[in-house]
Amino acid sequence: MKVALVGIGLIGGSIGLAARQRLNARVAGFDPVPAAREAALKAGAVQEAFGTVEEALDGAEFVFVAAPVAALPGAVQGALAAAGPDCVVTDVGSTKRPVVAAIEDPRFVGGHPLAGAESSGVEFARADLFVDSTWYLTPTAVTRGTVYERLHRLITRMGAWPSATDPDTHDAVMASVSHLPHVLANVLVAQAARVLSGEGERLPPTGPSFRDLTRVAGANTALWRDIYLANGDALVRAIDDAMQRLGAFRALLANGDGDGIASWNDAAREDRRRLLESDLAGGEVHELRVQVPNRPGIVAEIALALGRASIDIVDMALYPTSGGSHGAIALWIRQKDFGQAEALVGELGLEAARA
Amino acid sequence: MKVALVGIGLIGGSIGLAARQRLNARVAGFDPVPAAREAALKAGAVQEAFGTVEEALDGAEFVFVAAPVAALPGAVQGALAAAGPDCVVTDVGSTKRPVVAAIEDPRFVGGHPLAGAESSGVEFARADLFVDSTWYLTPTAVTRGTVYERLHRLITRMGAWPSATDPDTHDAVMASVSHLPHVLANVLVAQAARVLSGEGERLPPTGPSFRDLTRVAGANTALWRDIYLANGDALVRAIDDAMQRLGAFRALLANGDGDGIASWNDAAREDRRRLLESDLAGGEVHELRVQVPNRPGIVAEIALALGRASIDIVDMALYPTSGGSHGAIALWIRQKDFGQAEALVGELGLEAARA
Repeated sequence: MKVALVGIGLIGGSIGLAARQRLNARVAGFDPVPAAREAALKAGAVQEAFGTVEEALDGAEFVFVAAPVAALPGAVQGALAAAGPDCVVTDVGSTKRPVVAAIEDPRFVGGHPLAGAESSGVEFARADLFVDSTWYLTPTAVTRGTVYERLHRLITRMGAWPSATDPDTHDAVMASVSHLPHVLANVLVAQAARVLSGEGERLPPTGPSFRDLTRVAGANTALWRDIYLANGDALVRAIDDAMQRLGAFRALLANGDGDGIASWNDAAREDRRRLLESDLAGGEVHELRVQVPNRPGIVAEIALALGRASIDIVDMALYPTSGGSHGAIALWIRQKDFGQAEALVGELGLEAARA
Repeated sequence: MKVALVGIGLIGGSIGLAARQRLNARVAGFDPVPAAREAALKAGAVQEAFGTVEEALDGAEFVFVAAPVAALPGAVQGALAAAGPDCVVTDVGSTKRPVVAAIEDPRFVGGHPLAGAESSGVEFARADLFVDSTWYLTPTAVTRGTVYERLHRLITRMGAWPSATDPDTHDAVMASVSHLPHVLANVLVAQAARVLSGEGERLPPTGPSFRDLTRVAGANTALWRDIYLANGDALVRAIDDAMQRLGAFRALLANGDGDGIASWNDAAREDRRRLLESDLAGGEVHELRVQVPNRPGIVAEIALALGRASIDIVDMALYPTSGGSHGAIALWIRQKDFGQAEALVGELGLEAARA
């Protein structure tokens, strides 16, 4: 098996190492910068490094495009142009709507592994970077079922948990749980710096909350400028929502509404409890066998239905019947999710049963 | 020496334990709730527990009022009414303007130890709760110099670092570095809960930033409702400032202004670096001897001047000349701060020299 990387930094390099060490794959990489190719070879992330995409992708079965988010649509188009007809092409960008909207190709699935962020460069790459981490995939109606299945299996073998989601939801969730926190951290330090500017500009030791909330303030500018811009629409919506909530609390406070403040704080505690409640309790994994019509988009439909319910597909396999109108998909689902998964697949009008 | 506590919870109880164990003081406490008195005796925070303030304060040299912030002005008035003419009365409220504005008594100094917060109750009290933590004091022009000096020494002997500040600055700083972070944490979880409400309401594993920023969300409602309300004015101003900054970033984002976003992020990184830069590098401590006129407020003036410059007074002593018009104050200042302290005292028109 040959895996190709378009861009060999922390994420691309870690995919290369994981593919080599965990999957025994042959890995080739493209990087326009000679020094980056040297570093990738030295780190062992690739066996071959090339200065053109065509050379790197020659004969590849999987292509991971790990370019800066702003450059992704063009880089994915370039990879698809160089990739063979059975090649799987994916990207690792932290924002999914722009790239997914720009690409209509059955060989493409958008992706976003939730790993790494602050340190960059292939020298920090690790084969286990993705182990036990979520790896979002954004299949669409045009995505070929076998493409999604092959990518899902590959990612699973790298130790990650693939999770299907639609690009808009992905970007809204990222805006809320990752990008907005960074924005608020920046706002907080700026606000505190102004207040403390007459006080020697040193932070009083005030307990952990300020340090906790501002740990990510001023993160890597080049990286985060692009992340903010690429997810601009969703982030603007998240900011508007946050400002509305901030304004509502301000009104409670200005009115001295103790009961209102208490309710507001209780609701936040309840939100936090629900959001952070451990969902690690797993249980056994069972196979759910689903009979499916041989039509495009069916794999994406199932993966999305389960992804929306936060149900992990621990593993999956496609059993198409050559030339026939029907096939089967095997989904391995945890005990705790099994009943719900069966019901959700049933709601799609498909026959499913425990195998 | 007798120390009296008005209210024996986590903070009051820890003061009692510190006074007994570190200062060998006799400690009496008032609490209106019989069970709280029992618990305080059992925890060893007090040797005697009373159901009236008068009994607890009889013969006390120091009184620490540890009542809920909303009840502080009344509780401090009550303590002053029961306290002797040479007694030092202070409080431990997290907001200082309301209580300091309500009290004009030479025996009173507002206080706020930066320790403890989330767990409450005397059973969590510890004699070392204040060791190496900042303890804000808010002397005013009416505060008797010897009162401030005695309290400063007592707090130092408990292991804390007294730091003089004016109540408005104290409250604005607390609003920025403690209360606003809690508000933003609550806003963040509420925002994320809305976005994720269609997604099974479970948080995707998205790296540490969301958990870091929401760790304090929904903190103890009764405690934080009172803290928010007591610091309402300063917190409203901090919220307005934060909303303005959020709006400014929103505009950069909506305009796709990459350079503006990069500058904004760089500024946040610089703010954070400056705020969190270690100021622990200490050095030797030297005595600065200051000649002072015997007039009210002079100790407060000096303490405030140094406090504004974030200069720790490691220890201090007052040498009044009985009946004379002048006296002396000895201030122990760290090497790194010494020159600045000397200059600041000089700016007050006072003679000062290294002793």
